[in-house]
Amino acid sequence: MASPIRVNPRDNVAVALEPVAHKIAVEKIEAGEAVLRYGQVIGRAVRAIAEGEPISEEMIEAPPPPPLDSLLLDYTPPRPLPPLEGITFEGFLNADGSAATRNLLGISTTVQCVAATAEIAAHRIREELLPRFPNVDDVVALTHPYGCGVAIDAPGAEIPIRTLRNLALNPNFGGEVMTVSLGCEKLQPARLFPALEGEPWVVRLQDEEYRGFGDMVASIMRFAARRLERLDRRRRTRCPASKLSVGIQCGGSDAFSGVTANPAAGVAADLLVRAGATVCFSEVTEVRDAAPLLVPRCATPDVARALIRELAWYDAYLARGGADRSANPTPGNKRGGLSNVVEKALGSVAKSGTAPISGVAGPGERAPAPGLNFVATPASDFICGTLQLAAGMNVHVFTTGEGTPYGLAMAPVIKVSSRTALKQKWPDLIDIDAGRIASGAATVEDVGREIFEFVLHTASGRKRSWADQWRLYNQFALFNPAPVT
Amino acid sequence: MASPIRVNPRDNVAVALEPVAHKIAVEKIEAGEAVLRYGQVIGRAVRAIAEGEPISEEMIEAPPPPPLDSLLLDYTPPRPLPPLEGITFEGFLNADGSAATRNLLGISTTVQCVAATAEIAAHRIREELLPRFPNVDDVVALTHPYGCGVAIDAPGAEIPIRTLRNLALNPNFGGEVMTVSLGCEKLQPARLFPALEGEPWVVRLQDEEYRGFGDMVASIMRFAARRLERLDRRRRTRCPASKLSVGIQCGGSDAFSGVTANPAAGVAADLLVRAGATVCFSEVTEVRDAAPLLVPRCATPDVARALIRELAWYDAYLARGGADRSANPTPGNKRGGLSNVVEKALGSVAKSGTAPISGVAGPGERAPAPGLNFVATPASDFICGTLQLAAGMNVHVFTTGEGTPYGLAMAPVIKVSSRTALKQKWPDLIDIDAGRIASGAATVEDVGREIFEFVLHTASGRKRSWADQWRLYNQFALFNPAPVT
Repeated sequence: MASPIRVNPRDNVAVALEPVAHKIAVEKIEAGEAVLRYGQVIGRAVRAIAEGEPISEEMIEAPPPPPLDSLLLDYTPPRPLPPLEGITFEGFLNADGSAATRNLLGISTTVQCVAATAEIAAHRIREELLPRFPNVDDVVALTHPYGCGVAIDAPGAEIPIRTLRNLALNPNFGGEVMTVSLGCEKLQPARLFPALEGEPWVVRLQDEEYRGFGDMVASIMRFAARRLERLDRRRRTRCPASKLSVGIQCGGSDAFSGVTANPAAGVAADLLVRAGATVCFSEVTEVRDAAPLLVPRCATPDVARALIRELAWYDAYLARGGADRSANPTPGNKRGGLSNVVEKALGSVAKSGTAPISGVAGPGERAPAPGLNFVATPASDFICGTLQLAAGMNVHVFTTGEGTPYGLAMAPVIKVSSRTALKQKWPDLIDIDAGRIASGAATVEDVGREIFEFVLHTASGRKRSWADQWRLYNQFALFNPAPVT
Repeated sequence: MASPIRVNPRDNVAVALEPVAHKIAVEKIEAGEAVLRYGQVIGRAVRAIAEGEPISEEMIEAPPPPPLDSLLLDYTPPRPLPPLEGITFEGFLNADGSAATRNLLGISTTVQCVAATAEIAAHRIREELLPRFPNVDDVVALTHPYGCGVAIDAPGAEIPIRTLRNLALNPNFGGEVMTVSLGCEKLQPARLFPALEGEPWVVRLQDEEYRGFGDMVASIMRFAARRLERLDRRRRTRCPASKLSVGIQCGGSDAFSGVTANPAAGVAADLLVRAGATVCFSEVTEVRDAAPLLVPRCATPDVARALIRELAWYDAYLARGGADRSANPTPGNKRGGLSNVVEKALGSVAKSGTAPISGVAGPGERAPAPGLNFVATPASDFICGTLQLAAGMNVHVFTTGEGTPYGLAMAPVIKVSSRTALKQKWPDLIDIDAGRIASGAATVEDVGREIFEFVLHTASGRKRSWADQWRLYNQFALFNPAPVT
């Protein structure tokens, strides 16, 4: 058994590594005294805890969330990381200057009423058309439960709408937008894409020209064929790393996540930022308690104010629904040794590395700047993944402790396990084992660099992650804070 | 061109039928005077309207929603409809006394994390196992975006949870429940099905016995095979109509819906109720303004109180989100001649026929009583359909004006058009044309009886609706009024 891991020299608790991760006191902690992990207070001891004693959730009272309004008082801008020159990958260049890591046809939809029709059409396109266009990787129907039967002008309704817009504009669709609309829905195509011009891009199923269902599907296939012809002429070329947009997320975290997989992802994030890429981290309820660490990392006061605004918006959203951030940790988190959301947050932000935060995006918005971005999303894996795709993500890094068979159709997903036991149990799902950090077989830097290299290979089409090999593709999950009607 | 239809002799507006439905004043209406349709006030004229003048949305100011608390003051119980004896259909009898109209294997899931895995397994079961079990009609994976990353103890969280439970217990799954769980999710199997016993019914993907993805899928297939063997031994037998549970819904309504398809559905509802069946109508925001008509139809004061409670809950839900019932009508509704939600409501409740309301279910609950039930759901077609399935629905009647390619995997969907032009345009999607009422080719009673007969034939497997012929199966859409985290 390896020695317990104390992350910060100030800590009075450490994580024991075998047989399951759990926390023990490394010195006597008095009742009411602060319990420190990651050098931060994760709560106060509700009773005296002896040296060496295992620590469970009930023994720690979580602090209130850190107040947001005083965080800017002693702000000084952080220093940028040194650049890393000459990093490239093989991508598909788009007309707008972005690049695709997969050559996909996207079929957008305005409304749930056309979802089954779009799925049937996408299936037939895959079976009947795609064999004629060998340079196109796949076809993705952007189906969802929004667009009608919703309060489309209520506060927050702009979130699902801009999400759907930005999903269709993701670099991996190569700028070839087409939309299936019903006709009578609330979310009209012109509201979804106000600025779109050029050749016809809407198949409106209620149009008089369609004599029934067979006709509708045939029309979607005709629209698709024109786009497939253009997509098929594209080839991978050398692209600078600045055309990468990497989203980092964790799901099913355990106590190892914050000491193995997430810090390694943070090392990869730093390398990517230094190479000029855009890197996004997210999950508001999981970083909320780390706000005092994140605000000083914002590149400018405006970025800091945007970060605070997004965290405050989410506080209000949860309060309106009668909940707070304590709703976040799962039974698995707790079984895995995470006492509360404070401890989870400190391990979660490790994914973001050490770079200054150069931009903040609201849910469904594009990441605004190269470098490290905070994309404000719920922590739900599928909503977060969907919103990171809307932010422009073309490669996804997903760290997991308990393990989850996660995948996305729109971008390659690289799954990193926090424990070697998970990689051994799921050899055909986990791409990278960060558990070697805990066993001493690799350093955080080693695994971080491995993730970085895997991102470049996957973005270039030279490697396929396990999610792609199984076609393990989850449905999109929209974030709609407004009511349905 | 047929004469404009005046539904109630008190009305001062009627609906003109060609070339599109629109309202005209049948007498001079003074500024501020009540505008009457269905014998009810749909608003006040904002200016004087001349006899024969077409009426648009802006010319009518909608009234406030009828207050709910005074509706019970002069309540007297309505009289039941006379029974219709000896009506039967050929269904699959279940152990709990219910009956299936389709012989389906349902694969329930606790959490979105297993959705892609369950879909891949369902696909393989359909391709590899189903050919060996010819008496089983299909396999349905009950996938959804709930179960983790949600505030599972917040007010309203019981709604999606009981919905998922009752979907799995729908009669069309024959009582053969099985669930795919991840392991670390918030919605644990024992919370989803507290009362389930018998043979193992949970495939938990994080269990130590599964060595990777191939193993997980194989295990789901083994669980499925045992259930398919039992389902395959079932045969259709004669069942009384009391084992039918028919959900009625409208989607994409126009001004014809309230005078053709919906009243015809109401006639069918009356026949079904008289035959002993359970009939459900729904869509809170569409019936809210008709509350003064519905409360007197409740069979007992308790039912009336339950109805008022559900309408009031929805008022508060919309207000909390900064919306109200006026968010309901769509661009298509307005183009189709519906001025506002008051007018839409009066046409919508026509689907419920004339029977006393014998039961009220909250969203996600089972319909509590034979006879006519109000199942409180959002008006969103897909959420309503999902919640009617949770209420126990085994046949669905869907009326439409603008037209929508709607369908469900769990129960046959019979689509009824409000206009003959729609049936002509979409011959391979619309099952019954109620537009013949407007042209004089059939009466409301004729089409109502036709719907009634179609329900019995479809429930017996003798007829397949168009949705089933195309396998036009929408994803489930859960109603989750609580926050995501």
